[in-house]
Amino acid sequence: MSATVPAGSSGYEDLGYARVDTHRQARQGVPEVVYGPGKRPEQVVGIVRTLLEANTGPVLVTRIDAEAAATVLAAVPDGAYDASARVCTWRPAPTDRGTRVAVVTAGTSDGPVADEVVAVASAIGLEVIDVRDVGVAAIHRLLDTLPLIETADVVVAVAGMEGALASVLGGLVAAPVVAVPTSTGYGAALDGMTALLAMTTSCAAGLTVVNIDGGFSAAMAAHRIATSYARRAARETP
Amino acid sequence: MSATVPAGSSGYEDLGYARVDTHRQARQGVPEVVYGPGKRPEQVVGIVRTLLEANTGPVLVTRIDAEAAATVLAAVPDGAYDASARVCTWRPAPTDRGTRVAVVTAGTSDGPVADEVVAVASAIGLEVIDVRDVGVAAIHRLLDTLPLIETADVVVAVAGMEGALASVLGGLVAAPVVAVPTSTGYGAALDGMTALLAMTTSCAAGLTVVNIDGGFSAAMAAHRIATSYARRAARETP
Amino acid sequence: MSATVPAGSSGYEDLGYARVDTHRQARQGVPEVVYGPGKRPEQVVGIVRTLLEANTGPVLVTRIDAEAAATVLAAVPDGAYDASARVCTWRPAPTDRGTRVAVVTAGTSDGPVADEVVAVASAIGLEVIDVRDVGVAAIHRLLDTLPLIETADVVVAVAGMEGALASVLGGLVAAPVVAVPTSTGYGAALDGMTALLAMTTSCAAGLTVVNIDGGFSAAMAAHRIATSYARRAARETP
Amino acid sequence: MSATVPAGSSGYEDLGYARVDTHRQARQGVPEVVYGPGKRPEQVVGIVRTLLEANTGPVLVTRIDAEAAATVLAAVPDGAYDASARVCTWRPAPTDRGTRVAVVTAGTSDGPVADEVVAVASAIGLEVIDVRDVGVAAIHRLLDTLPLIETADVVVAVAGMEGALASVLGGLVAAPVVAVPTSTGYGAALDGMTALLAMTTSCAAGLTVVNIDGGFSAAMAAHRIATSYARRAARETP
Amino acid sequence: MSATVPAGSSGYEDLGYARVDTHRQARQGVPEVVYGPGKRPEQVVGIVRTLLEANTGPVLVTRIDAEAAATVLAAVPDGAYDASARVCTWRPAPTDRGTRVAVVTAGTSDGPVADEVVAVASAIGLEVIDVRDVGVAAIHRLLDTLPLIETADVVVAVAGMEGALASVLGGLVAAPVVAVPTSTGYGAALDGMTALLAMTTSCAAGLTVVNIDGGFSAAMAAHRIATSYARRAARETP
Amino acid sequence: MSATVPAGSSGYEDLGYARVDTHRQARQGVPEVVYGPGKRPEQVVGIVRTLLEANTGPVLVTRIDAEAAATVLAAVPDGAYDASARVCTWRPAPTDRGTRVAVVTAGTSDGPVADEVVAVASAIGLEVIDVRDVGVAAIHRLLDTLPLIETADVVVAVAGMEGALASVLGGLVAAPVVAVPTSTGYGAALDGMTALLAMTTSCAAGLTVVNIDGGFSAAMAAHRIATSYARRAARETP
Amino acid sequence: MSATVPAGSSGYEDLGYARVDTHRQARQGVPEVVYGPGKRPEQVVGIVRTLLEANTGPVLVTRIDAEAAATVLAAVPDGAYDASARVCTWRPAPTDRGTRVAVVTAGTSDGPVADEVVAVASAIGLEVIDVRDVGVAAIHRLLDTLPLIETADVVVAVAGMEGALASVLGGLVAAPVVAVPTSTGYGAALDGMTALLAMTTSCAAGLTVVNIDGGFSAAMAAHRIATSYARRAARETP
Amino acid sequence: MSATVPAGSSGYEDLGYARVDTHRQARQGVPEVVYGPGKRPEQVVGIVRTLLEANTGPVLVTRIDAEAAATVLAAVPDGAYDASARVCTWRPAPTDRGTRVAVVTAGTSDGPVADEVVAVASAIGLEVIDVRDVGVAAIHRLLDTLPLIETADVVVAVAGMEGALASVLGGLVAAPVVAVPTSTGYGAALDGMTALLAMTTSCAAGLTVVNIDGGFSAAMAAHRIATSYARRAARETP
Repeated sequence: MSATVPAGSSGYEDLGYARVDTHRQARQGVPEVVYGPGKRPEQVVGIVRTLLEANTGPVLVTRIDAEAAATVLAAVPDGAYDASARVCTWRPAPTDRGTRVAVVTAGTSDGPVADEVVAVASAIGLEVIDVRDVGVAAIHRLLDTLPLIETADVVVAVAGMEGALASVLGGLVAAPVVAVPTSTGYGAALDGMTALLAMTTSCAAGLTVVNIDGGFSAAMAAHRIATSYARRAARETP
Repeated sequence: MSATVPAGSSGYEDLGYARVDTHRQARQGVPEVVYGPGKRPEQVVGIVRTLLEANTGPVLVTRIDAEAAATVLAAVPDGAYDASARVCTWRPAPTDRGTRVAVVTAGTSDGPVADEVVAVASAIGLEVIDVRDVGVAAIHRLLDTLPLIETADVVVAVAGMEGALASVLGGLVAAPVVAVPTSTGYGAALDGMTALLAMTTSCAAGLTVVNIDGGFSAAMAAHRIATSYARRAARETP
Repeated sequence: MSATVPAGSSGYEDLGYARVDTHRQARQGVPEVVYGPGKRPEQVVGIVRTLLEANTGPVLVTRIDAEAAATVLAAVPDGAYDASARVCTWRPAPTDRGTRVAVVTAGTSDGPVADEVVAVASAIGLEVIDVRDVGVAAIHRLLDTLPLIETADVVVAVAGMEGALASVLGGLVAAPVVAVPTSTGYGAALDGMTALLAMTTSCAAGLTVVNIDGGFSAAMAAHRIATSYARRAARETP
Repeated sequence: MSATVPAGSSGYEDLGYARVDTHRQARQGVPEVVYGPGKRPEQVVGIVRTLLEANTGPVLVTRIDAEAAATVLAAVPDGAYDASARVCTWRPAPTDRGTRVAVVTAGTSDGPVADEVVAVASAIGLEVIDVRDVGVAAIHRLLDTLPLIETADVVVAVAGMEGALASVLGGLVAAPVVAVPTSTGYGAALDGMTALLAMTTSCAAGLTVVNIDGGFSAAMAAHRIATSYARRAARETP
Repeated sequence: MSATVPAGSSGYEDLGYARVDTHRQARQGVPEVVYGPGKRPEQVVGIVRTLLEANTGPVLVTRIDAEAAATVLAAVPDGAYDASARVCTWRPAPTDRGTRVAVVTAGTSDGPVADEVVAVASAIGLEVIDVRDVGVAAIHRLLDTLPLIETADVVVAVAGMEGALASVLGGLVAAPVVAVPTSTGYGAALDGMTALLAMTTSCAAGLTVVNIDGGFSAAMAAHRIATSYARRAARETP
Repeated sequence: MSATVPAGSSGYEDLGYARVDTHRQARQGVPEVVYGPGKRPEQVVGIVRTLLEANTGPVLVTRIDAEAAATVLAAVPDGAYDASARVCTWRPAPTDRGTRVAVVTAGTSDGPVADEVVAVASAIGLEVIDVRDVGVAAIHRLLDTLPLIETADVVVAVAGMEGALASVLGGLVAAPVVAVPTSTGYGAALDGMTALLAMTTSCAAGLTVVNIDGGFSAAMAAHRIATSYARRAARETP
Repeated sequence: MSATVPAGSSGYEDLGYARVDTHRQARQGVPEVVYGPGKRPEQVVGIVRTLLEANTGPVLVTRIDAEAAATVLAAVPDGAYDASARVCTWRPAPTDRGTRVAVVTAGTSDGPVADEVVAVASAIGLEVIDVRDVGVAAIHRLLDTLPLIETADVVVAVAGMEGALASVLGGLVAAPVVAVPTSTGYGAALDGMTALLAMTTSCAAGLTVVNIDGGFSAAMAAHRIATSYARRAARETP
Repeated sequence: MSATVPAGSSGYEDLGYARVDTHRQARQGVPEVVYGPGKRPEQVVGIVRTLLEANTGPVLVTRIDAEAAATVLAAVPDGAYDASARVCTWRPAPTDRGTRVAVVTAGTSDGPVADEVVAVASAIGLEVIDVRDVGVAAIHRLLDTLPLIETADVVVAVAGMEGALASVLGGLVAAPVVAVPTSTGYGAALDGMTALLAMTTSCAAGLTVVNIDGGFSAAMAAHRIATSYARRAARETP
C-alpha cells in the first residue's frame, strides 16, 4: 500500500459538490466514510453510489438522522440503518480480521455513542465485546467484568460526566485504551468538554482520546491498530 | 450560638486596613482565619494580635510564604509555621472533638494541598487519618486502604489531573466526601480547572467540591460537619 | 456496612443495557437513583423494577420529563411524579432520620431546582425547612428568616445569577452549607457557570459546591451527612 | 464644552511615538491620563511634559512601577508617587467638586486596587470616603458602616473572589454603584474573571462594572457622574 | 431614606413561592421590578398585585413573553405590554425627574435591547433621547448626531458584535456612559460575550458595563444616577 | 474617493429604526450590505429601498431566511434569493473587475458558507473559481486542483473542524489567503471556534482570518483587495 | 512560479534538527522566515546560513531576544537586530515593490508590535507609512491623519484592549485592512484574546485578522497582496 | 498477565509520602514511571530505589529539571539524564520488541517534546524513526519523507500552533496516529489548547490525541500497541 495515488489516476471522483476519495481503501484499508451532517440527502446518495462503484469494501454514512437515512436507503439498495447509532451501512465486511475491540460504557445514557462504535467497528470487520454500564460509581461492576475486557486487543472507554471510567480502565488493562468522552451530563459537564479534558489529562499512562461523542473515531482508531497488526504480521511472517 | 452580634458590640475591630471579625468564634466555632496573600507582614501581625486577644480559640494564617511567616512569627510569639502547608498557627486546639477526617490524595505531588488540610484540621481540633498516593492508576492501593478510610466521619479527596479519585471514593464510601481539585498536572489539566469541573459533574452522588488547591476550605467544610454534629448531639441528648 | 460486595454475589443485575447496582443500599444507605436523560422509557422501567425488587428503600428517577414519567408510572405501579422537580418516586422513606435540611433559594426562578432538593431529600427520609426568595438584593428577608434557617443541620443554598446568597449564608450560619448554582439568569450568567465559579471561590470558609442545577446532588450530600451522623451516634452510644 | 476640536487646532501633539490628546480636558474635564505599561520611561516623560504644558488640570500616570516612576519623577519636577496605588501625580486638583465617593473593599487584600481609586479620585478633586474590609463573610461589618456609605454620591465596590459585596451593597444603597472586580483569590477566582462575570450578572438592579483591578476606571466613572451633575446644576440654576 | 427596614415591619410579603420586597421603593426610589423568566404566570400575578398594593410607584415585569404577558394583564388590570421590549408596565411614573438619558444603538438589530432601556427608563420617570443605528461602520452618522447625544445626563451605548460604539462614544462625551453589550452577531461574537469583554477593557476612561442584553440594568443604572442627583440637589439647596 | 462626507450632506438616511449609510458606495465602492438577523421584514424592505434609490451599485441582504426573503422580494421587485447562501440580491454588478477569487472548501458540508462567498463575490463583480471538497484527509485532491487555484488573485479557504486546509493552502500558494472557519463538526469543533483559533495561529505565514461562517466577510475582503488593485493601477498608469 | 518543487530537487535542506525550506522564495517570493522561540542559538545559526546560501532574498528571524540575537549575529556576519521589534535581518530587499503599507496603532503601548510589522515589511521591500497612537479614545487624531492613511494600498491596524481602532478604520478606508490584536491591556483584555474576538466579529465589512501580537503575520499578509498585484500587473500588461 | 494483584501481596510499597505501584510491570509490561513535578528530590530518590528493587524493567522519571536530576542521579547510581527531554533513565530495555515508532515533528521548536517521546520510547524497548520539521507550511518535506514514515507501526505526530500536521499525516498513512499537541506558538495558540482541540476534531478518521506536550503519553500509547501486538502474536502462534 502506498500513500501516493498511482500515476494516471486522479484518485477521486469530482461530483461538483464533492470530490469523493476513491483511493482511500487502497491507502487506508476501508473506503471513505461519509459524514452526514450538512449534506443534502441527494448529495449523500451521489457520494455513496460513487464509493460503492469505486471500491469493494464497506460503505458507511455516520450521524445521519432517520428521515435522511430513509431517503438515501430508498435510492441506494441493499443498505441498512441503525437508528440508535445513526449509521447507514452497505456491504459490511466479514468479521474475520482477528481483532477484538471491547466497547465499555460508564452508563446506560452513553449507549448511543457506544452503538456508533459497535456499528462502525462491526461493519469494517472487527470483533466487538460489548460491556455496558460499568461506571465507577459502582466499581465492583467493572472489576467483575474485567477478565472479559482483558481479552480485547483494543479497549474503547465511553464515558460522559467526569469520564473517570477511562482512567480506571487505563490503570487496569495493558491494551491500548481509546477514550471517548460523551456529552452525557449537564451543567459542569459542558456538553462533554469536561470529560474530554479529563481524559486527556488522565493519570493513567498512554491513554488516547478522540472527539466528544466520537464513536466513529474510536472505531477507526481500532481499525488503524488492526491494520498495523496485519501489516506487521505480514512483514514478520516468512 | 447566634448569627447576630450582641447589642452594644460592633463585633469587629477596625484597624484601618482591616475590620477584624471578632465575633466569628461565637458565630461559627473558630476565630476568623487570616488569608495571607495581598497582605503586608505588618498587617498580618496586627490582625493576628487582634484575633488572639479577642478570642480564645486557635488563630491561623494560610497561604503565607516562608519569609513573611518568619517576620510574623518574630513579632507574635508562640506561633509555628508548617512550610509545606504554608500555614502559621497559634494556640492550636486539642484534638478532642471526636470527628475523624480522612485526607486521601491521588498522588505524591498533591502532598502540599493535603498538608494544608491536615494543618488546618489538626489546629481546629479534628482527628486526621492521612492516606497518601492511592490514585486510580493503581486502584489496588485504594481498595487496600479502604477499610481505614471507611472509619472516617468525613472524607477529603485531594486530586489533580482528571481527579478521578474523588468519583471512585464517592462510589465506595457512605460518608460525606469533600473533593479538592489540585493544580497538579499540565496542559489540559488547566491548572486544576479540569479537576474542578470533573469533580463537580461526578457520577458519584452527593460529592461536594471546594476551590482548586483549597485545602483550607476542605478542612473548614469538615469543621462545619463536626460543629453540626455537636449541636445535634446536644439537642438530642437529654 | 462495607464497601466490598459480599462473597458469592455480583452485587449488580445485568439487564444488557444496564448493570443495576443492587448493592448500593447496603453500601451507602439508599438504593441507586436513576438518572433519566438518555434512557428510553422501557429502559427506565426495567431498572426501576430491578431496584424495587433488590432493595427495600425508596426508588427515584430524576430529570425525567412528564411524558416519559407517565409511561414509566403506567408500567410500574405505586409511583408518584413531581412535575416541577421532574422526579419520580416509589416507596418514599419515612421522615424519621432526625436530620433537618434547610433549602434556601435566592429567587422565585430558582424554584424548580429547590423542588428537586425537596423531592429527593423528603423521599429519602430527611426533614425539609423550605425558605424561598431571600436573595441578597433585599437582604432583610434573609436576616429575618435566619433564626429558622439556623435550626437546620445542613443548609442548601440555591442561587443563580452571581450566587451571592451562598456566600452571605456561609458567613452567617455554623452548619454545613451546600451551594447549588442554578442556570437562572442570562448573558454573563453563562447558564450557571458564573454562579458555580463564584460559589467555589467564595470568601465564606468551608462552603462546598455541587453541579449547576444539581438539586439531586445537594440532597445526596445532605444524605451523606445524615448517614455519617447516624454511624457516629451508633459508635459513641454505649 | 464640545466634543469637536476647535477649528484651526489639531487638538493633539505628535511626539512620534505618541499623539498626546491635548483636547481631553476641554472635552471631558480632566487631561488625558497616561497608561504606564508598555511605555519606556523617556516616553512617559515626554507625554507628561506635553500634558502639563497643554493643560491646567492634574496629570497622572497609572500602573507604573517604582523604578520607572523614580526615573519619571526625576525628570519632571513637582510630582508624587503612591507606591501602593502605583500612580504618579502632578498638579492635583483641590477637593472642591462636592462629589463624595465611597470606596468600599471586601478584604484587606483588595487594598491596592482601592488605593488606586483613592489616588485617582483625590487627584481629580473628588471627596473620598474610605471603607475597608467589610466583605460578606462577616456582614455585620457592612451593616454597621452602611450609614457612612449612604452619605456618598457614588459607591465604588471593590471585591475579588466571588465579589458578593457588590451585590449586597447594590441591594442596600440608592446611589450609583460601580463594581470593581479584583484579582484577589486563586483557582476558580480565575484572576478576577469570576468576580467580573458575577458582578455583571448581579441580582442587584442597576449595578455597573469596570475592568478587573480597574481602580482607575472606577474613579473616572465617578468623575463622569460628578461632571454630569455639575453640567445639570449649571443648566437648572437660573 | 434608610437602608434598614423600619422597626415593627418585615419589609416584605411572604407569598410562599416569593418574598416580595415591599421596602424597595423606600430604599431605592422605585418598587422591585419583577424578573419574568422561570416564574409561572400565576406567580407573576401574585407578585405584581402585592407590589401594586404595597407601593405607590410604577410596577414592571421584564423579559416576559407575549403569551405570559397576556395572562398576567388579563388578571391585573390597567397594565400595558411592550412586545419588542418584552416589558409589562403598571402605573408608569410621570417624566418629571429632569434626567435625560440618551439611548444610542450601533445597529438596527440592537433595537429590542434599546427598546427595553426605553420602556423601563420611561416608566420610572426618565426622559429618553432615542438615537438608533449610528455604529462605527459609518462613523459620520455618530458625529452628526453627537450634539443631540451631548445634551443627555447619562448615555446608554447599546452595541453587539465588537461593541466599538461604546468606546468611541466614551471618548467623545463627558457624561456617564453605560455600555450594554448585545447578543447581536454570530460566531466570534460569542452571544455577546465578546462585546462584554471589549466594553469592559475599553480604552475610553470611565466607561461602565452591564450584562449582555441588559437593557433593564442600564435603565436602572440611569435611575441610580438620577436618584443621586436628586439627593445631592436636596442636600445642597438651602 | 474620500472618507469624509461631502459638505452639505449628512451621508445617511434616517428611517427612525435605521440610519442607512448612503455614502458607503462613494467611500468603499459598493453600497452598504444589509445584515438580516434581528431586523423585521418591513425594516429590511425600507432599508433596501433606500439603498436602491441612493446608490447605483448592487444591493444585498445576508443571512436572511426563506420566509423573510419572500416577504422582502414581494415588496421590492427585481431581486433574487439564493436559498443555500441565504442572500438576497438586487442589481448585481457585471463581472468585469478583473479579479479572480478562488473559493476552496474542505468538505461538502462547508458548502453553504462557500455559497455565501460565491453569492456576494459574484454580485459585486468578482470572478469566482469554485473548488469544492479538497480537504486534507485526502490531500491528493488538493494537489491535483492546485494549478487551477493558483490562477486566482485571492484565495478563500473555507473549512470547519480543525481547518487544516487553510494552513496547507497558505503554504502552497503565493496569493492572499482569506481563511473562513466554519461551524462544521461537533464536540471539540466548538461550533467553529477551534477552526478560528487554529487558522489564526497557522504556521503558514501571512494567512488572514474572518469570522466563523463569515462567507460575506471573505467576499468583502476580496473586494477590498480588488479595489486596492484598481486604485493602484490608476495611480501607476500614465 | 509553481507550488510544486522542480523534479530532481528535494526543495529543502535537512539539518537533522530542521528541514529548511529552500524552495520558499521560488514559491512565495521571499525565503522562509525563521521563528525564533524554542530554537537554540546554534540551531538558528545553522538555519540562517542555509537560507542565505540557498536563496537570494532577505533572511529574517522573528521573536528573538537580545541575547540570542547577539550570539547569532556574531556567527553570521552582515546582519542587524531591531531590539524593539525583536527581529534579525540579513540582506534586506530594496523598497521598490511599489506597495505602500500604513501601520496604524491605537496607543503608544502597541509600539513593539507595530515595530515588528515595520521591520518585516521594510526588509521585504514594502514601503511603510507609520502612524502611531490614533486610538478611538481621541478620535480626532485618527480623522486628522486619515488622508495620509488613505494613500496606502494596505492598512495594518494594530490595537490592544478592545481593539476598536480596527473597526473604525475598516469603516473609513477602502483598502484591505489587516487587524493585529495586541496583548496590551489587563484583566478582561485576556492577553489580547478579547481584541482578537472583537476584530473577528467587527461590524466593518471585509476586515481580516491575524494572531495576537502577530506583527510578522500582518507584514506577510501585505506581502501576499503585493505579490498578487505584481502577478496581475504582469498578466494584464501586454 | 492479570489486572488483579496476587493474593498475599499488597502490590505496592508504602513510603509514607508515596505508595509505589510495584505491580505495574506485571500488569502493564513496564514499571511505574515517576512524574517529577511537585515531588522533592529525596522523594524521587525513594521512589526510584523502590522501583528498581521491586522490578526488573526500566525505571524513568519525567519532567524533571537539571538540578533535581543531578541530585537524584548522585543518590541512585547508573542512571542517565536527557536534558532536552527532561527524562532520567535507569536500566533501559533493549530495543528488541519489533515495534517501530515514527516520531514526526512539525517544526524545530517542537523538538523537546519529540525528544521526550524518543527518550521514553527508546528506554522501554521501542525502535524510533525520527523525522523532524516537516510541517505543512512546506508540505513537500512531508511528502518526501512519507515513504520512511510509512515503515512505522505507530506514528506520533508532534505539532504546535494549529497542529495541521496531524491531520495531513492522518490522511496519508494507514498506521495508528497518536497526535501530540505542543505549546509551541503564541496568542491564539493558547499554550497548546488550540492544537489539542484541532487534533481532537480532525477530519482525518481514527486519529487519537494525548495531552499538550505529552511526549511521555504518546510513547506509552505506542507501548500499549506494542504490548497488544505481542499478546496477539502469542495468542495466534501455535
